[in-house]
Amino acid sequence: MRPTLRLRSASSLHLGGTSTLTPSPALRERVRRPAYLQKLARAEDLAPLFKNDDYIGWSGFTGVGYPKMTPTAIASHIETHNLQSDPSTKKRFNLFVGASCGPEVEERWARNDMIARRYPHQVGKEIAKGINEGRINFADKHLSMFPQDLTYGYYSLNKTHGSPKHPLDWAIVEATAITEEGYIVPGASVGATPEILQSAEKIIIEVNTRIPNLEGLHDINQSFTPPNRLPYLVVHPKDRIGTTSIPLDPDRVVAIVESDKPDNTGANAPETPDSRAIASHLIDFFSSESGIGNVANSIIGGLADGPFEQVQVWTEVLQDTFIRFFDSGKLSFATATSIRFSPEGFDHFYKNWASYKDLLLLRSQQVANSPELIRRLGVIAMNTPLEVDIYAHANSTCAMGSRMLNGLGGSADFLRNAKVSVMHTPSTRPSRLPDGTKDKTGISCIVPFASHIDQTEHDLDVVVTEQGLADLRGLSPRERAPKIIQNCAHPDYRDMLMEYYDRALYECLKKGMGHEPHMLKNAFKMHINLQEKGTMKIDKWD
Amino acid sequence: MRPTLRLRSASSLHLGGTSTLTPSPALRERVRRPAYLQKLARAEDLAPLFKNDDYIGWSGFTGVGYPKMTPTAIASHIETHNLQSDPSTKKRFNLFVGASCGPEVEERWARNDMIARRYPHQVGKEIAKGINEGRINFADKHLSMFPQDLTYGYYSLNKTHGSPKHPLDWAIVEATAITEEGYIVPGASVGATPEILQSAEKIIIEVNTRIPNLEGLHDINQSFTPPNRLPYLVVHPKDRIGTTSIPLDPDRVVAIVESDKPDNTGANAPETPDSRAIASHLIDFFSSESGIGNVANSIIGGLADGPFEQVQVWTEVLQDTFIRFFDSGKLSFATATSIRFSPEGFDHFYKNWASYKDLLLLRSQQVANSPELIRRLGVIAMNTPLEVDIYAHANSTCAMGSRMLNGLGGSADFLRNAKVSVMHTPSTRPSRLPDGTKDKTGISCIVPFASHIDQTEHDLDVVVTEQGLADLRGLSPRERAPKIIQNCAHPDYRDMLMEYYDRALYECLKKGMGHEPHMLKNAFKMHINLQEKGTMKIDKWD
Repeated sequence: MRPTLRLRSASSLHLGGTSTLTPSPALRERVRRPAYLQKLARAEDLAPLFKNDDYIGWSGFTGVGYPKMTPTAIASHIETHNLQSDPSTKKRFNLFVGASCGPEVEERWARNDMIARRYPHQVGKEIAKGINEGRINFADKHLSMFPQDLTYGYYSLNKTHGSPKHPLDWAIVEATAITEEGYIVPGASVGATPEILQSAEKIIIEVNTRIPNLEGLHDINQSFTPPNRLPYLVVHPKDRIGTTSIPLDPDRVVAIVESDKPDNTGANAPETPDSRAIASHLIDFFSSESGIGNVANSIIGGLADGPFEQVQVWTEVLQDTFIRFFDSGKLSFATATSIRFSPEGFDHFYKNWASYKDLLLLRSQQVANSPELIRRLGVIAMNTPLEVDIYAHANSTCAMGSRMLNGLGGSADFLRNAKVSVMHTPSTRPSRLPDGTKDKTGISCIVPFASHIDQTEHDLDVVVTEQGLADLRGLSPRERAPKIIQNCAHPDYRDMLMEYYDRALYECLKKGMGHEPHMLKNAFKMHINLQEKGTMKIDKWD
Repeated sequence: MRPTLRLRSASSLHLGGTSTLTPSPALRERVRRPAYLQKLARAEDLAPLFKNDDYIGWSGFTGVGYPKMTPTAIASHIETHNLQSDPSTKKRFNLFVGASCGPEVEERWARNDMIARRYPHQVGKEIAKGINEGRINFADKHLSMFPQDLTYGYYSLNKTHGSPKHPLDWAIVEATAITEEGYIVPGASVGATPEILQSAEKIIIEVNTRIPNLEGLHDINQSFTPPNRLPYLVVHPKDRIGTTSIPLDPDRVVAIVESDKPDNTGANAPETPDSRAIASHLIDFFSSESGIGNVANSIIGGLADGPFEQVQVWTEVLQDTFIRFFDSGKLSFATATSIRFSPEGFDHFYKNWASYKDLLLLRSQQVANSPELIRRLGVIAMNTPLEVDIYAHANSTCAMGSRMLNGLGGSADFLRNAKVSVMHTPSTRPSRLPDGTKDKTGISCIVPFASHIDQTEHDLDVVVTEQGLADLRGLSPRERAPKIIQNCAHPDYRDMLMEYYDRALYECLKKGMGHEPHMLKNAFKMHINLQEKGTMKIDKWD
């Protein structure tokens, strides 16, 4: 019973009462359940209601479809009242979002030290800083599994306040429309919004009237918790298994806020000579493979000019290159959990909405990333690691084994279950030497032993760099290592890596332990050299 | 066209012709397709047909249901004619089996150096020796994925002989009966037999008349290759989605052999005080969890005496303890891909077949281990690793990062997709010191950094040793490490591991890279100490 009491005492706003605000005509058009308009609120009036240690879920995925007004108002409230300077007024929240949000909200929260815990993915310098400096507890999780673990209550086992029925105190979600039933038509992402709504005691809906009403773009299936889950009856990327809006319990909706802020996306990363070389190796590889029916992700720019027709895409996020791919006529259908276009991309997409709307579908991340569907459909998966080792274990998350970048995301959902699992990376990255100059190839992305392992040797079929492609299907570890080194490593590291492998092979075979030969004492020597001398180029193996 | 020519010239036996052998009454009763009896052959007559570099698939899983007569005859042929002593007559085969086979065949093949390649799992000293000495190319693969990769042709990309339509030259499979259509009723395992039959150019069926006709025990669904795969419509462990026999093309059956050999299983591993302590920690944990509906694997002895009723099991293999569990009345249904009882267990089971047959179902390993079903049903998965690290990455396969034990098996299929993923291990194992004496706790199964990683931190929920249980659900890496060390590590290693963690934390936070703190230069120090000094007990961290 605590929440109601607390809400009333915390603010002059009487949640659940009758709003005195007048909805704009745009909002009236979007909200088809009149009772919700009685709950119209200003974000700044809601801000003081959020308490230290509250568990909060947001909509949003890859920086689109997140709530913009309320999180901003909460940050402003905290800054204005200087709450963080005093431990007795300081507020730190447990924040759960399908994946990453816009920097103007998440980064600002991190800068204000407002985040105690953040699962299961993030993007942004300030939040990564908080995680790596030990102020933010972060755990990355397979994006397909996160919503299930949330509804199971795994993230709220240590939550001591509120009803144990509700893993989250609050859900703050963006909608582009609300149906007669009070259900939510999301924005440009679905992500974990269905399960965040299921899990929350109190729901705030931000109706974004600046973004078009995207009704019809989404396919929302009922999400039961095992053991009562039903099969996902999808056998083709275009199959619909649900409805166009997210169901929720209207009684838990405590406020509606009008939003007029766009998704704050930047430009997509530009192509480089390296990325074009990688795409070209991959297109050669797939051209020589017969019977490839559905290509699933990335190298999409290359595909628009490539030899494949009637391509179908099952993926996590669609970026700008997909617009060109759609426009080329070669992409027959695409489905994902999020559309993350650049601002210009979104302008073009929304303007031409009528011509795109039958070509794509957004699903929840639990479905878009589900092992069940990725495996059934025979998806080709492509992803970029930080580093891959000579036996094809890959590090997707932690530089030098310790420093978190963004998190695992859906990489392992796709790579483990795909028909062909591809890791593509430049063979090297630049490093800074102690004298301040750069070593253009100071970091090798092919290493003896990955300093953190997110994808195992059992999950990768192909490794490709600008140097070339290694087809690892059906190979044993001793067959893989020379192939990865010779085909993928940069010439600056090729001999060094072969010497590691040859010496490890010799020493391990001698001892009758040569299945996957390693010299443990040298396994991280290149990494340690980078730490101490600014480059992975070692003088010699011990 | 090569195979037919080769077969005729290689042997006086005319495969596909009319056999002059007289079938036994027992065999006549089991083979309900009379035309097959025309193909009756003696294993010793088939043996010479197998050529160097042939690709061969066997039925079998966890040492049951494998062919006994033909592989034995091939080994005898090679030994009798001393073929392996001369490179020009030497025969080495590429062998593919769902998981492991009986030692009297697989070990004998390994001892004769008859195995060039062996995927995706194995058990036995001789075969492990061949792998670790570099004579056998072995790759372990998720058992759910192996059959799919086989039918895709991933394991025969470098096969230069035979028809490219057929990844395998031969399938040799055991049956306990043959239907009117010529389809196969398997023995005590299904494993990858359906896909091995699909993949083979020539099929030899060993009809085992010593084991009872097990018709009705199996559920065999059609196995389409993606993108034409259909949903597995299982929502309860007892749901049937297929037929009781494995379909095949009768024209590809080249010979029938009668077999009278039992599955050569030994006794199951006995319980120990440590395993009882682990089971007790787990039963406490599950007792305190509400809403646990279906407990999935292992600690089954404890469960028979435990507080759970109406337990349903979805697993990979059933062992002797399941008999006790069935007999306790607490196990309402079990499904797996294999039954691996001791000889006494099988006697009891076959004798009481009528009372067990409605309580269990064997499926193909592609279904039994499928992420789709493990995730949908909300299975609780339990498995034993070689070692677990302080952040909950686990090594299931390679001692000291290099020496293969048995392979990955289905561990990752279950652990990644389960509702609750449990790794249970003794906290230490004994080692041998340089002076020949034993250090009873010379190997810690909790280490700073796993020397090989098969299961990632994103896949484990619970780690348990005889020392205690660490519930890791929802915890960040910095919360996990102290919990695993304090709850699970042996007292001989607790301080050592805490010092590693504390120092890594201090150093990494200082550098702003403390998400998952490591000292890479010390990450394998305990392992290296074991290699050099026979114990993981180090004097000090550097």
